Amino acid sequence: MGGSLPVSPLAPESFPKLPVIKGVTFATAASGVKYKDRDDVMLAVLQPGTAVAGVFTTSKTRAAPVLDCQAKLGEPSDQGAAILVNSGNANAFTGHYGQASVEEITAAVSQATHVPQNRVFTSSTGVIGEPLPHDKITAQLEALAQAQSPFGIEAAAGAIMTTDTFAKGAEATVEIAGKTVSIAGIAKGSGMIAPDMATMLVYIFTDAAYDQFALQDMLARLTDKTFNSITVDSDTSTSDSLLVAATGAAGVDATDNESFERALHVVMKKLAHQVVRDGEGATKFVEIRVTGAVSDAEAKVHGMSVANSPLVKTAIAGEDPNWGRVVMAIGKSGAEADRDLLSISFGEVLVAEKGWVSDNYREELGAAEMKKAEILISIDLGLGSGTSTVWTCDLTHQYISINADYRS
Amino acid sequence: MGGSLPVSPLAPESFPKLPVIKGVTFATAASGVKYKDRDDVMLAVLQPGTAVAGVFTTSKTRAAPVLDCQAKLGEPSDQGAAILVNSGNANAFTGHYGQASVEEITAAVSQATHVPQNRVFTSSTGVIGEPLPHDKITAQLEALAQAQSPFGIEAAAGAIMTTDTFAKGAEATVEIAGKTVSIAGIAKGSGMIAPDMATMLVYIFTDAAYDQFALQDMLARLTDKTFNSITVDSDTSTSDSLLVAATGAAGVDATDNESFERALHVVMKKLAHQVVRDGEGATKFVEIRVTGAVSDAEAKVHGMSVANSPLVKTAIAGEDPNWGRVVMAIGKSGAEADRDLLSISFGEVLVAEKGWVSDNYREELGAAEMKKAEILISIDLGLGSGTSTVWTCDLTHQYISINADYRS
Repeated sequence: MGGSLPVSPLAPESFPKLPVIKGVTFATAASGVKYKDRDDVMLAVLQPGTAVAGVFTTSKTRAAPVLDCQAKLGEPSDQGAAILVNSGNANAFTGHYGQASVEEITAAVSQATHVPQNRVFTSSTGVIGEPLPHDKITAQLEALAQAQSPFGIEAAAGAIMTTDTFAKGAEATVEIAGKTVSIAGIAKGSGMIAPDMATMLVYIFTDAAYDQFALQDMLARLTDKTFNSITVDSDTSTSDSLLVAATGAAGVDATDNESFERALHVVMKKLAHQVVRDGEGATKFVEIRVTGAVSDAEAKVHGMSVANSPLVKTAIAGEDPNWGRVVMAIGKSGAEADRDLLSISFGEVLVAEKGWVSDNYREELGAAEMKKAEILISIDLGLGSGTSTVWTCDLTHQYISINADYRS
Repeated sequence: MGGSLPVSPLAPESFPKLPVIKGVTFATAASGVKYKDRDDVMLAVLQPGTAVAGVFTTSKTRAAPVLDCQAKLGEPSDQGAAILVNSGNANAFTGHYGQASVEEITAAVSQATHVPQNRVFTSSTGVIGEPLPHDKITAQLEALAQAQSPFGIEAAAGAIMTTDTFAKGAEATVEIAGKTVSIAGIAKGSGMIAPDMATMLVYIFTDAAYDQFALQDMLARLTDKTFNSITVDSDTSTSDSLLVAATGAAGVDATDNESFERALHVVMKKLAHQVVRDGEGATKFVEIRVTGAVSDAEAKVHGMSVANSPLVKTAIAGEDPNWGRVVMAIGKSGAEADRDLLSISFGEVLVAEKGWVSDNYREELGAAEMKKAEILISIDLGLGSGTSTVWTCDLTHQYISINADYRS
């Protein structure tokens, strides 16, 4: 639970300075749903005309707020939007109570903000299977509406944390047609992280205008290369949600602008990396680059098989350059591989080539790479031109300690 | 490495008394491939007419001995067969040296035993990526051939161990047409265990006669319900091999006999369970029974998703009745599920029904079930008649200790 765990050794030095996004305001409050003496609710209010796009967990046991958000994505944007997030209780596997809580909360947000209820998006993260005491949240709504400020995004990043050990944020600015548009995003997530997305909540805001349907398309494309390319423990939560809101307040339409897409990609990748860096118990940040696969999709299957292998992840925790376990993980992935064409490098060190340990490889060279906090594993399959890069962390005693004791 | 770890708390009290199987003899030796002062090679010699069937890892990076065994399965049985197994070095990812070592060993076994080389099956288990010093093994072959004894099966079970903390064996006898036929099996395996089979080596012998093709069919069928229904860590080795040899020395043909198939199923299930009981760091033996799925295959997908979930496995290690994580694992499996039809029990305790915590459930009841060394998790999906049972163990600090330090 945020605060009780030491900050990840892989955390950035500080929360980044995020630009003010015109057209969106924030406020946070301490509702006492579960945590004491900390903010656990955030409300963001978006101006009329804001386009909202979203991607969500593919879990078959999706939580009520996720189902509600998905149903609202296509609604018209002319009367603004609001996003309310609480931490401490996921309102997941709560039967008909779950939907009733979502109804109560979204109705109260609508009343306090004058945003129509069909544009009020909510997320809940925390304990599964306990009814959400939504009265504690609705009791804060008038205050949250009153306190709205354009400068509240960092506090919002803190309010949505659960087992996170640091608040996560990223930003970018782009020049379009002589005007500057800004992007600022926040995220939470540290365990139960895998495609498709796991216990992650991500909210990204831009003051560019963007066609709502085109925004949804771009988001799906970029999610595949960012949040769906990370894994901490292969587990996927019932609540993952990523919303992007384009307010249009900067007076520039960024629809289909390549620079804007690149900038959003960077923001999403930075946030995804921060989630991995806060992986429960993580001491190593690991990038796995797969090349030479039959297709990009098959490259990703191999990459994720390596990234999710407990034996690879414990070897990294032990700083053991155990490339045999990488071979094992490639072999079991189900995607195409030929043992005798396979090459593996740790950092710049070529470890194995053509199905056999490299002539120049010495154990000390691999061991030196494994001592680093950031580890690169490159795998070339020698079969085709498919590539993929995925990110993960190591599997340590601290992961066991957190998850054998914490009731999530 | 066998011997240096404490014996699993889930181990049987002692190695079972295995019946003598007429038509097969055994011997073991200490070749010094890797381990000091212990037997690390076993040779079994089978009489002419012995039918041999096998199933193997589906890894795309299969080791040389596996490829060699697979190629030999269909060969005629009239001149007998031999099985040679070494521990300490897996002869995997060893390039062209790998096949050369298999050639040297099988030729030497053939010379020492007068079994044709195309009926000499070998397996190797241990370190990946280091050339097998096969001379150390071939140097033992004359002695191994001389020392053959019908009573050597328990010593053989010991010689094939790597990180195993106890030797594994199981037996059954069946009456067919007024005669008794016997089945005796041995196995090794403790980590890198998942479908399809992982670092497991299994050898089962019977003195029944059995048609070689029918034996292969039955073996595939029974493997799906036994060795391919267990998982320790979701990782799959490059070397898994299961051979069944039917010598026919009892003078009874068991082909298509249902009692025999049931008895072989029992032996395979007992050996598979012993592998889980020796799962690296295991303190709990977990049975997951899935019912009400759309099909048996989908039931198994759900069962394996729960059995492989690090969050479920750490909750069990922590004796936490965290049924929310079971819901999560069902949701992410990819197989059909309806949150609001789902029921979950721990032992006899109904925890959740119809998408919501059960009215009679109290945390103490679930917690009491979790304190047991053997845990049953029952999941009913409420969708159809598909069922599956799978077995796993918990994920503990000891798993991390073993795998962050041991170079496998």
